[in-house]
Amino acid sequence: MSSSDSLILALDAMGGDDAPAMVIDGAALALERSSGIRFLLAGDENRLRPLLARHGELEKACELLHTEEFVSGDAKPSVALRQGRNSSMRLVIDAVRDGRAAAAISAGNTGALMAMAKVVLRTLPAIDRPAIASVLPSRQRPVVMLDLGANVDCSAENLVQFAVMGEVYARAVLDVEKPRIGLLNVGTEEVKGDNVVREAATLLRDSPLDIDYAGFVEGNDVIDGVVDVIVTDGFTGNVALKIAEGTASLYADALRNAFRGSLRGKLAYLIGRSALGGLRAKFDPRLYNGAMFLGVNGVVVKSHGGTDAIGFAAAIKAAVDIARRGTNERIIEGMAALVTEPDPAETAAR
Amino acid sequence: MSSSDSLILALDAMGGDDAPAMVIDGAALALERSSGIRFLLAGDENRLRPLLARHGELEKACELLHTEEFVSGDAKPSVALRQGRNSSMRLVIDAVRDGRAAAAISAGNTGALMAMAKVVLRTLPAIDRPAIASVLPSRQRPVVMLDLGANVDCSAENLVQFAVMGEVYARAVLDVEKPRIGLLNVGTEEVKGDNVVREAATLLRDSPLDIDYAGFVEGNDVIDGVVDVIVTDGFTGNVALKIAEGTASLYADALRNAFRGSLRGKLAYLIGRSALGGLRAKFDPRLYNGAMFLGVNGVVVKSHGGTDAIGFAAAIKAAVDIARRGTNERIIEGMAALVTEPDPAETAAR
Repeated sequence: MSSSDSLILALDAMGGDDAPAMVIDGAALALERSSGIRFLLAGDENRLRPLLARHGELEKACELLHTEEFVSGDAKPSVALRQGRNSSMRLVIDAVRDGRAAAAISAGNTGALMAMAKVVLRTLPAIDRPAIASVLPSRQRPVVMLDLGANVDCSAENLVQFAVMGEVYARAVLDVEKPRIGLLNVGTEEVKGDNVVREAATLLRDSPLDIDYAGFVEGNDVIDGVVDVIVTDGFTGNVALKIAEGTASLYADALRNAFRGSLRGKLAYLIGRSALGGLRAKFDPRLYNGAMFLGVNGVVVKSHGGTDAIGFAAAIKAAVDIARRGTNERIIEGMAALVTEPDPAETAAR
Repeated sequence: MSSSDSLILALDAMGGDDAPAMVIDGAALALERSSGIRFLLAGDENRLRPLLARHGELEKACELLHTEEFVSGDAKPSVALRQGRNSSMRLVIDAVRDGRAAAAISAGNTGALMAMAKVVLRTLPAIDRPAIASVLPSRQRPVVMLDLGANVDCSAENLVQFAVMGEVYARAVLDVEKPRIGLLNVGTEEVKGDNVVREAATLLRDSPLDIDYAGFVEGNDVIDGVVDVIVTDGFTGNVALKIAEGTASLYADALRNAFRGSLRGKLAYLIGRSALGGLRAKFDPRLYNGAMFLGVNGVVVKSHGGTDAIGFAAAIKAAVDIARRGTNERIIEGMAALVTEPDPAETAAR
């Protein structure tokens, strides 16, 4: 994408609850950890310059794309698309389209970001609808789950495309050679579920694709990590993700209160601190921040809106991995196998 | 239902992973805690008698319904319905139909139990489809959630009926005077979600029913307890429940391992034990065991198949509360308000 040796990442400096400070601090952290990266920073120069002044190294690695416009968190995607042509969010997507950046990262409005990514970058050949995919912790090892909310209604064909994209994504980011794919359902027996998942299961089972389809998985299997890739529609995936995050946060808070609530609790915490610290690090949701828009023709990573610098740095790291491993190119190859009789005219028209 | 002063509960002694011992031990525990209850115990007398001999008080409070047949965990509902007419599961449902028991409780095959309940007991007037409802812990207070898996495909009208049943159920079991109802969705804005949830939202908002509809809620709101009743289709509800249970169990196990993994951890556990014990009690899934089949004409409570005696006792307690509070009668009243122009002929035909 970029003509220089560095990997250039375009950051929407104005997206997210604590932007732009959180974005700048996150970029500084990411720069310490990844070598050979540079940033295009889209946002209000007057607000960004003073923040950058605190990070000498980062300032040298940044080029500013000045704009005073940004997409608000509650803007409708269609409105953001029409009226946000000079927004910080749009500038980072444009930078990816024009090859000036290898990836765009934003913690702003998810719907608006997806709409811009679809319209400006277009979808990959043979993909009808992009999906939001993320890496999540599980009992055994990290797993990939999609769709996390881009498509509330899905056909069986959509789910099959998600499976293929998820398989390639898992190989790229989890370093799993042959990821096992599971379809999320209410039971593991073939008769379970609605027509869409059952038809998707048949398509995947009978597919000539070289993927390891493991069958249906249930909600608890997601957490237990029995497969590497969990495929579901955007409605169920979004609810599942928020339920898991909410439950984890409920437990973490209850644990904290239990320790703080008494002298014995405080003492126990002081003694057990190191053991508990390891636990926290293992499940820290910030370290899993950064969902990819799989299926658009360019790397776009969505950070949680409420994250902090540590979380935003993780999203940048995810984008770096995805771009360096040629994930999108590998998805194009993977999808090509799905199209049994490719139509060059149709492919060219996209 | 019963002509005696005691409340009679019919227990499927052969359902569940650790049946029948778990059922007998659970019944003994429940008998210690609830006064004025008796049991009909359906199962193999030769296996039940020796177990009952260990519990003198329980033996006196039990009447056996002998059968050697039972419904296996992997039986198809249609097969169980046809071939299981003399199964322990069917005998407890029949006992409710005939007024010999106020409630049936089983830890067996969920699909078979629902099929038998629907066919033998029929659905309540104005209810198209029964739903599985359960009480779950949340950050603030216990909440009711439905459907947890009876209906993978739901119409807007189904969701509205679930909302009404859930409202009445919450009043009966949570002691909340005016429960707040939320529709589970991928966002709280009106434009979010698929057509079914959006139409259900319109129906609930414009309804003349005296219920407190609070709008859309997201996955994390379920855990935070922002409403008293969460309404969703059986696909999403089933996945959500299993994700929440899986996440809770993952954290509990990780915490245990953290404490056990080092000498400092063990010492911390010994000192903080009482504080942590309170935490465990608050979220112990066994205490929330017992899902009700809302909308069938009789009280049927489903226990987790993998539960132990403590969990089964909780399911019995749930059935006692539901029966004593006249939950089904209150649902009939609540649903009557939904039917604006009741058709006596249709109601009689059910």
